[in-house]
Amino acid sequence: MDYRQAIREISGADEAAMARAREYCDSLIKPLGSLGRLEEVAVRLAGITGQVKNTLDRRAIVVMAADNGVYAEGVAAAPQAFTRLQAVNMTKGICGVSVFSKAAGVDLYVVDIGVMERPEAEAVLDRNVRRGTGNMAVGPAMTRAEAEAAIDVGFEVSAELFGRGYDIIGTGEMGIGNTTSTSACAIALLGIEPELAVGRGAGLTDEALANKVGVVKRALAINSPDKSDPVDVLSKVGGLDIAGLAGCFLAAAFFRKPILVDGAISAVAALIASRLCPSAAGFMIATHRSTEPSYDQTARELGLKPFFDMEMRLGEGSGCALAFPIISAACTMMNGMGTFADIAFDDSVLVDIRETDEDLEGRHG
Amino acid sequence: MDYRQAIREISGADEAAMARAREYCDSLIKPLGSLGRLEEVAVRLAGITGQVKNTLDRRAIVVMAADNGVYAEGVAAAPQAFTRLQAVNMTKGICGVSVFSKAAGVDLYVVDIGVMERPEAEAVLDRNVRRGTGNMAVGPAMTRAEAEAAIDVGFEVSAELFGRGYDIIGTGEMGIGNTTSTSACAIALLGIEPELAVGRGAGLTDEALANKVGVVKRALAINSPDKSDPVDVLSKVGGLDIAGLAGCFLAAAFFRKPILVDGAISAVAALIASRLCPSAAGFMIATHRSTEPSYDQTARELGLKPFFDMEMRLGEGSGCALAFPIISAACTMMNGMGTFADIAFDDSVLVDIRETDEDLEGRHG
Repeated sequence: MDYRQAIREISGADEAAMARAREYCDSLIKPLGSLGRLEEVAVRLAGITGQVKNTLDRRAIVVMAADNGVYAEGVAAAPQAFTRLQAVNMTKGICGVSVFSKAAGVDLYVVDIGVMERPEAEAVLDRNVRRGTGNMAVGPAMTRAEAEAAIDVGFEVSAELFGRGYDIIGTGEMGIGNTTSTSACAIALLGIEPELAVGRGAGLTDEALANKVGVVKRALAINSPDKSDPVDVLSKVGGLDIAGLAGCFLAAAFFRKPILVDGAISAVAALIASRLCPSAAGFMIATHRSTEPSYDQTARELGLKPFFDMEMRLGEGSGCALAFPIISAACTMMNGMGTFADIAFDDSVLVDIRETDEDLEGRHG
Repeated sequence: MDYRQAIREISGADEAAMARAREYCDSLIKPLGSLGRLEEVAVRLAGITGQVKNTLDRRAIVVMAADNGVYAEGVAAAPQAFTRLQAVNMTKGICGVSVFSKAAGVDLYVVDIGVMERPEAEAVLDRNVRRGTGNMAVGPAMTRAEAEAAIDVGFEVSAELFGRGYDIIGTGEMGIGNTTSTSACAIALLGIEPELAVGRGAGLTDEALANKVGVVKRALAINSPDKSDPVDVLSKVGGLDIAGLAGCFLAAAFFRKPILVDGAISAVAALIASRLCPSAAGFMIATHRSTEPSYDQTARELGLKPFFDMEMRLGEGSGCALAFPIISAACTMMNGMGTFADIAFDDSVLVDIRETDEDLEGRHG
């Protein structure tokens, strides 16, 4: 099945399961709503899986690695060869995402979806669609067919993982120059000002940042992406990594599994997925707030609020690895905490609490 | 040793170890500073332990449980008996902090430092100083000697845990009415307006909140705590749980071990510890941002920035339990990630990166 067939069959969150989850959550021995966003996650998970209680023990992070032709414009602080090098290093277990994943009991899958040269490690899955995109500052990054093939790669890899029994996946990327393509996509899709959506990536000087803004403007002017057509935007000013991740998000929605959004690149891929299929957004959970300037607007558009703001800008899926324990805690809350009914020691006391809590609900409502 | 002897021997963070940690962190294969606050934590841990690489495998949360006489003024949504009931439930593994601790591999110690009636569970440590405080709205919550004894309980319990090999502890509390004492202490110590420092606790209506503000003002007026004397503040308008936690913070500093600040109550205890011994603040790490209004000002005064804002207001130490994996990730980053020297594949490339990064440093500096 390709992603275009799949999106016709994606339906939204299970509202009835969410209502049951909300009710059960309110029966736990804690003041109503006192576990805040953890309760929101538990309810969202119920909407995704249809179950009030969830166990998400089998966890994976999928890293899409791809090169960007726009590198030629001097938009990145690191050398282009780092895409390949770090894809290999991730599988060797020495990158940020590798060590955090290992610590959190998360399996890491690195996919060469568009690296310039084949990474020298068998563990890097070979699903290369094209050896790096074209330079979007002088023409389209790729063809429409390539963008669609890359979305399909993400869809298929994720489908395979869910088929193998993974309960949840996180998303990551490795691609020197991909904050440039991310900014261009966010600007095209959201209509924001380039100056407000282009950031320093892994670390640019003021001068290099000004150049990057100019490059993004040129790429948008020369390609005129059609904002109502996400694949057009993706193929003209996007990247193979972004396309692959968009496919992952669509697969999660299709298989009704939760999927984590990492930083700015992952978020713009999520945005593309939700433009292709609005129901897909209900299956996403945001992790950390990226310092890249396009992140906030992208997350807002998706209705996602990240859990933490650790001032991180590493990418790789590192924020997902850090967030898995929080997702687990939301499950643990539902699976392990006692209910007021369990501990009932005096009915009149319980009545008191519930009444107070209803007043509070009324105030919030 | 009592806490008063101990604080004379507490010295500050190990600046040399912090400098070495910063340098090592910058050698890891990631853009400089790209792991943001995780890097700050790693550096702080080095300052605490004197080691660049740390392993904090043995982790505990200490929950101080105590009742508050000010309950009589109608300041809490839950019945007073919940302090005792939940102290027992914590040890039964069904409360929020219990399930999160279990999931995170953290041992939980619940201490009866001032519960009205002895909790009916052997697992609740009996270190009761007094069976609930007096009503601070009509007189001092406790005597100075009782406040000091309670600080010593926290110091001793923590000393015992560190002696048993725990590498890090988290702090929690259970005490119906303790956001009232917390607000009163924060107002007295920080000089903030009562209206800005008194919150809804576990869930008060508008009317009950207005009453709570009035009660806090009355307690402060009647007791006139001396803001330059933290034990005076603690004994007059504080609580036995807060005093116990202050002792935990002092013990961590004395034994040079990291200690986690949970929510508003834990934070005000940390503030008292740092007023007793300013060096103690260097051993604290903030976890989540409490929704209680006194939290932000207290954390700012301590120079602490919480990791996440999950809109939680459960207390119990639940935020610490959620934060342990982040602390571990900071250790894992230092222990597991490769360095640029490890992967050097082309000297000229490395020179390029370091130069770019130095430019960036310059910009930040």
